[in-house]
Amino acid sequence: MLGREIEDLIEALARLPGLGPRSARRLALTLLQRKERLLSPLREALVAVENHVVSCQLCGGFDTTQPCTLCCDPKRDGCVLVVVETPADMWTLERAGVLRARYHTLGGTLSALEGRMPEDLRIPQLLARIKKESFKEVILALSARIEGQTTLHYLMEQLAPFQIRVTRLAHGVPMGGTLENLDDGTLTTAFSARTLL
Amino acid sequence: MLGREIEDLIEALARLPGLGPRSARRLALTLLQRKERLLSPLREALVAVENHVVSCQLCGGFDTTQPCTLCCDPKRDGCVLVVVETPADMWTLERAGVLRARYHTLGGTLSALEGRMPEDLRIPQLLARIKKESFKEVILALSARIEGQTTLHYLMEQLAPFQIRVTRLAHGVPMGGTLENLDDGTLTTAFSARTLL
Repeated sequence: MLGREIEDLIEALARLPGLGPRSARRLALTLLQRKERLLSPLREALVAVENHVVSCQLCGGFDTTQPCTLCCDPKRDGCVLVVVETPADMWTLERAGVLRARYHTLGGTLSALEGRMPEDLRIPQLLARIKKESFKEVILALSARIEGQTTLHYLMEQLAPFQIRVTRLAHGVPMGGTLENLDDGTLTTAFSARTLL
Repeated sequence: MLGREIEDLIEALARLPGLGPRSARRLALTLLQRKERLLSPLREALVAVENHVVSCQLCGGFDTTQPCTLCCDPKRDGCVLVVVETPADMWTLERAGVLRARYHTLGGTLSALEGRMPEDLRIPQLLARIKKESFKEVILALSARIEGQTTLHYLMEQLAPFQIRVTRLAHGVPMGGTLENLDDGTLTTAFSARTLL
């Protein structure tokens, strides 16, 4: 009843993560009702991204240049490499301005359950970079979940032969967080890693 | 840091209803990571909709033809006109297969607070249609909220001069619903409009 164009749009929207068929319908309708303000800018942005944005062969992030602006930035500390799971984590760290180092995205975590092996991630590329470039420290900034930690231990083994400092992030009470809502694991870690005042 | 194309995409996504800056970032990243499967189909669908879909001058719905397929469908009951707030409501009724009548979308509800007057809605067009076409019944299928009901009462006044049957939807306990979670207004209505078995 809706016409194929509209049905196709609903279908394309419904494939996006976090959107079900119902919200896709609502969104399609909003786009139709606000062509100038919503639909056209989104279409233009998608076309531009599709034509110009590429995946950086070095860090695995996204940019319009190859290698990306970040990998080419001469002001960054070339001695420190931050290994993250996804470009999203890279964006988060950059936005927080945590440090100005180099990055390497793995493209996910190892997972026996989902069949993701080291060669499915950008781990061979990571080892090649470490051989070639002159990093003094590799920070494994992986998630504190089981799969992130499995990946971390695998990487530690792989990096052991290199004469390089390998570090991981500290665990503990999040800033602004109360103890009441924290899980036992975090609490235990926070106590055992307590620091002297 | 992200490049203008990606920032533009995030901005275009963040404007969509229900998406904040954070989810827009996440969505942009997913689109970048799955160009073939997600980004391209969405871009194609948006281009097609932008180029081909128009608002029907009769009912206010969306289609690729003018008037729309539904308004031109000779198998529909031309005696009954269903007045709804938005094309979304029209889609909902059509999907439920409630009835095969003609439709008229108002494009919203009257609202003193938001300054929406009768001429901001498709009310003049509604009255013109009723004068011109030969409807025997107008069903006001408006929402059971205050603004929907204000609009309903305004339309009842406007339609009074016409020799035409004007009806509204029944209120009551939703099918499959329990009494426990119903508001007092619905409960009162359901009791006062109770039917003999």
